[in-house]
Amino acid sequence: MTNPTQAPGSGTPASPKPSLDHLRTQIDSIDQQLVDLLAQRRRVVQQVIDVKHQHDLPTFHPAREENLISARRAQAAQAGLDPDYVEDLFRTMLRHSRVGQLNTLGRRGVRPGAKVLIVGGLGNMGRFLASWFRQSDYDVRILDCDDWPQVQSLASGIDLCILAVPIDITPAVAAQIAPHLPPACVLADITSLKLKPLEAMLKAHAGPVVGLHPLFGPATTTMDKQIVVVSPGRQVEQCQWVLDQFTLWGNVLVETGAAEHDQIMSIVQSLRHFATFTFGQFLCSRWVPILRTLELSSPIYRLELAMVGRLFAQNPEMYAEIIFATPERQALLKDFIESLQQNLSLVERGDKAEFVTRFRKVAEWFGPFGEQAMRESTFLVEKLVHRF
Amino acid sequence: MTNPTQAPGSGTPASPKPSLDHLRTQIDSIDQQLVDLLAQRRRVVQQVIDVKHQHDLPTFHPAREENLISARRAQAAQAGLDPDYVEDLFRTMLRHSRVGQLNTLGRRGVRPGAKVLIVGGLGNMGRFLASWFRQSDYDVRILDCDDWPQVQSLASGIDLCILAVPIDITPAVAAQIAPHLPPACVLADITSLKLKPLEAMLKAHAGPVVGLHPLFGPATTTMDKQIVVVSPGRQVEQCQWVLDQFTLWGNVLVETGAAEHDQIMSIVQSLRHFATFTFGQFLCSRWVPILRTLELSSPIYRLELAMVGRLFAQNPEMYAEIIFATPERQALLKDFIESLQQNLSLVERGDKAEFVTRFRKVAEWFGPFGEQAMRESTFLVEKLVHRF
Repeated sequence: MTNPTQAPGSGTPASPKPSLDHLRTQIDSIDQQLVDLLAQRRRVVQQVIDVKHQHDLPTFHPAREENLISARRAQAAQAGLDPDYVEDLFRTMLRHSRVGQLNTLGRRGVRPGAKVLIVGGLGNMGRFLASWFRQSDYDVRILDCDDWPQVQSLASGIDLCILAVPIDITPAVAAQIAPHLPPACVLADITSLKLKPLEAMLKAHAGPVVGLHPLFGPATTTMDKQIVVVSPGRQVEQCQWVLDQFTLWGNVLVETGAAEHDQIMSIVQSLRHFATFTFGQFLCSRWVPILRTLELSSPIYRLELAMVGRLFAQNPEMYAEIIFATPERQALLKDFIESLQQNLSLVERGDKAEFVTRFRKVAEWFGPFGEQAMRESTFLVEKLVHRF
Repeated sequence: MTNPTQAPGSGTPASPKPSLDHLRTQIDSIDQQLVDLLAQRRRVVQQVIDVKHQHDLPTFHPAREENLISARRAQAAQAGLDPDYVEDLFRTMLRHSRVGQLNTLGRRGVRPGAKVLIVGGLGNMGRFLASWFRQSDYDVRILDCDDWPQVQSLASGIDLCILAVPIDITPAVAAQIAPHLPPACVLADITSLKLKPLEAMLKAHAGPVVGLHPLFGPATTTMDKQIVVVSPGRQVEQCQWVLDQFTLWGNVLVETGAAEHDQIMSIVQSLRHFATFTFGQFLCSRWVPILRTLELSSPIYRLELAMVGRLFAQNPEMYAEIIFATPERQALLKDFIESLQQNLSLVERGDKAEFVTRFRKVAEWFGPFGEQAMRESTFLVEKLVHRF
């Protein structure tokens, strides 16, 4: 680093130290005022939360947020600031205030006092859901492996029964619990398959049935904008309050048929997890030096490797469930390996022209998504580069 | 959405509208003051840049940044704000001001006026480098396919010759250009392989030689913190000014031997690109409905798909070069497909226990990186969820 006491090679001979110090003091004062304003903002937002709480108003107000952003962008442009930069800051602030609101407002219950039975309530997702329902003033009961002798009393008078057990036993558990449920009780599951569990629940229980697939794990601290896939089963209206509860927590609900859901998940989950698992295993088998690799890597690879590492920081049984789920999924994996083989023979023949042809065909099929993907990942890469 | 004119189910009967409006006006006023302060800050930072410019001081001052962050964190904690939240905002601000400084300060030349010849200067990376060198007041000359008849005059008196041609012709081009270079000229390449190009450059040119591998593409708008891998060839001291130029532009330089570089890149680039290419092709061959898939996806999958889409938005020839580069890379791909096959037979046998055993072994090998990966990717997922 250049030593500021050295005479600079050219230019003014005066030392820059005093004027830099003076300017830095100014910056510190501005920064202090910024934090003061943030604290003021937080206090006013808290008052908004209190008013909303009193009047049962929804937390999130998308139009208000967009207006606010537009006004600040316009002000920024006039002041000679980059509007994207100012938007970035305000989105962070709004997110923070939204999460704050959800943490107090959103935890309220749609039907406080209703009785919720969580089957598999000692598993990770079971515990997670139990804590959210409890914080929203539901009467939560847990039924785990050892509690079947008490099933009669646990299931008595319940309004909602959620199956939070591994995929492969979900149909059997549905059959086992259903006879004990009140006829008007909502029966729901949360597995990452929908066809078979839904079929089993509909067969076992004559009342309202809905299939849920939360696309997040129990490590999540906020439900804000997290997706829950909903596959309707029977008596949709009777199930509505359960869906409303997730919406109030901040979740985004996406409805889909069970068949479409399972088809998409076979690729989104099974195939990706299988490929990621094998890649991690391959790095391990070759003793690839991870940390050195990261030093020599572009942020995109760092991101990819983070996603591999992430898988291995989670529960192997859960991944086994997802990958081994159905014979269709196995066939899909086989087809995928087959296409890898075909591309390998391309490489072995040195046929670059054919590679480029195939590449262009896929690029065309991706269409505008390619550009969008470029934008999204560039945005994230920037975040990654400047964070770490 | 709840209609505020409806009588609320419980609580105070007064309409919340006036008090909400009043609070929102307060928030708008605070937000306006925030943007005013940001603009003030920008002006003072510009003065800092001017002083640094006058006195040849470095742009980036890590210790100053960390002190500033610590002070704001402490103030935030005292004011009842989340320090992580305030740090997040200030990191965004500092990054913005750093990029602004680099765009003016960092473009200066270490040796303004020195003559730089870019071979392949009409390609994407060639044009990119030419523009950076030009903005830093170098005398830049371009030699592309059609310019060989003028090689004598183009190469006369040059200080730096950069080979920016495809990997497979880099050794041949090195041999072709070297006889025309002055003995003290630095010869460098920028391909993503280092062993062969470096060998060819050392053989052809008796003067200073250095292998460079910039880990970013020509779409980059800032060099800030972007990595350039450096494999020294000969007369390291004579090459230093070239490396200093990249550092001044904001790049981070990482030194490595050519063999280690190539070994790591075979996995980091070749294998990953091959697998990503095949996955995209597989989605295409099955007409998987991308947009619907995204609606039904967790942010992590959205991220993964963005990385697939990103590949297909780029240059197929470049990916062909990387994947087809060496026989060793082909052998690696073959081994990878072999391990996929082995894992498939596990799935076909339904041997979950063995899957879990293998999973645990890899998880152990990843060690603390797994947790780190979880943190990094969770951070990014949050960014992604709240941005789009």
